[in-house]
Amino acid sequence: MSRPRIGITLGDPGGIGPEIVAKALAAPLPDSDYVLFGDEEGFRNETSRLGLTLGVRALSFRTPGEVRPAGRRGAPDKDNGTASFRAFEAAVADARAGKIRAIVTAPISKKSWELAGVPWRGHTEYLAAAYPDAIMTFWSEALTIALLSHHLPLREALDRVTKRGLLRFLMSLRDGLASVSPARYEFLVAGLNPHAGEGGILGREESDEIGPAIREARESGLPVTGPFPPDVVFRSALGHPERIVVALYHDQGLIPFKIAAFETGVNVTLGMPFVRTSPDHGTAFDIAGENRADPRSMIEAIRLAGRLALRPL
Amino acid sequence: MSRPRIGITLGDPGGIGPEIVAKALAAPLPDSDYVLFGDEEGFRNETSRLGLTLGVRALSFRTPGEVRPAGRRGAPDKDNGTASFRAFEAAVADARAGKIRAIVTAPISKKSWELAGVPWRGHTEYLAAAYPDAIMTFWSEALTIALLSHHLPLREALDRVTKRGLLRFLMSLRDGLASVSPARYEFLVAGLNPHAGEGGILGREESDEIGPAIREARESGLPVTGPFPPDVVFRSALGHPERIVVALYHDQGLIPFKIAAFETGVNVTLGMPFVRTSPDHGTAFDIAGENRADPRSMIEAIRLAGRLALRPL
Repeated sequence: MSRPRIGITLGDPGGIGPEIVAKALAAPLPDSDYVLFGDEEGFRNETSRLGLTLGVRALSFRTPGEVRPAGRRGAPDKDNGTASFRAFEAAVADARAGKIRAIVTAPISKKSWELAGVPWRGHTEYLAAAYPDAIMTFWSEALTIALLSHHLPLREALDRVTKRGLLRFLMSLRDGLASVSPARYEFLVAGLNPHAGEGGILGREESDEIGPAIREARESGLPVTGPFPPDVVFRSALGHPERIVVALYHDQGLIPFKIAAFETGVNVTLGMPFVRTSPDHGTAFDIAGENRADPRSMIEAIRLAGRLALRPL
Repeated sequence: MSRPRIGITLGDPGGIGPEIVAKALAAPLPDSDYVLFGDEEGFRNETSRLGLTLGVRALSFRTPGEVRPAGRRGAPDKDNGTASFRAFEAAVADARAGKIRAIVTAPISKKSWELAGVPWRGHTEYLAAAYPDAIMTFWSEALTIALLSHHLPLREALDRVTKRGLLRFLMSLRDGLASVSPARYEFLVAGLNPHAGEGGILGREESDEIGPAIREARESGLPVTGPFPPDVVFRSALGHPERIVVALYHDQGLIPFKIAAFETGVNVTLGMPFVRTSPDHGTAFDIAGENRADPRSMIEAIRLAGRLALRPL
């Protein structure tokens, strides 16, 4: 399949999602079939309003029929929550059914989803419920990271740093990457404690859990090293996106990622039977409708989805 | 006192310390009296070997008499540990006695100190024992951070995140800054949990400890805001060195700092009756003696010490 079908959800109609999707589709993109999930009429109006000509030839729409977005901009809104959730659900259903190979999700509002009674806090939680081995990774030219855990209180995240859990994660990461990309990667595992525990003086997790998991993974042939001092490993991986830094908790990875790659960072969910990418920012309600939204992260998310969707899953 | 006296310790004689001090003293520096603590003969040999002419006019030496460095390069060494510790001790004694206003410390080897039987793990631990309210801060053109705690296992560091402890820290930070600089600063406090706890869903420390400490500090007139999502606050403070980000644990601050400011970052210890600065790197044994060491961080450390030492303590 040389032209993978890629689904794009428009996100919360009250945020910058429709604007950045329209701007992205007016930019040079790989030759694919794109299916937009969301309100077609609203999107066409948005495109006209922005004075854009969509450069992508093969474009179709799928607008779930149950609801129409309220059109309220710049704030969380119940109807917008329902609309963005239904569109996302439809995209996942199509991906599961093999009709599309990848989903690119524009930002939704967690608050809009909550107002709409959606029982998941966001895309990630929805996917994690359906695919417990799904892995959150973040990609950019400067830095690539993978998160052992994501939306957990920090203390709970520390409890997840076990030999068994990390080993399973590394295996899933290897498998998830192999299913989307022929490229060769190295995994660099960050330590948990300052200076990676400094031989046990500053913490035992490195010697008791992380080190043994890395050794066992290496014995199974995984290209993994560490644990490295956290304040060194991200710096030393900068400029080497093929060196994926395994971060042991949400902010250990996202603090450096957002500094190194903010404008063009892409969130990639691996370990599912389809690829999902999304830009590395939110709905930006404060600038919605002002034609000021920067589409670079969305453009990169679509390009990366196209690249990763080339490989049979 | 328009020409503050500034002490500079040469660090571990087997590391890059003497080389970066020599290179720094050959660079343009503020007009001060500089006192070097360490082996004078060894330093003069190093300067000749590097073919450098020291540009600083007022330069004197203080070489503690008890020991001579072994001269072994590129590895931890007991005699080098003794030499670098004695030099540091002498500098602190002179600073306490008011003979110098600031100390700039070149990197020592923790292992050399251990081999020499020194009971402290490094400069910071020595100073923290003498001055329990000492605060570690890191300065650069891009980012300034202050660390609530430093060399502790992460779990222990989390236990230090209390309303009382943070409030005391913010007061000490305000006082420490006021004693060295007339500049106006803002303090931005990072949250502890992902998204700063997201209203309690991802952790309670923000609502139970951090938020109340910030409110009380503000009521006392401190220019402090937060808690902010950790993966946003460092990014948003980039390029605003007058916005000091308060990091709640070692790596929360040092991961972004080392990405934003590695080559020119300076470690500044506040809250003592003298100023101490140091470059943001170690002994670099692997390149010792090869004339490859980058002196930029040391130059910035000396310049910043000169600036901060202008104000009466």
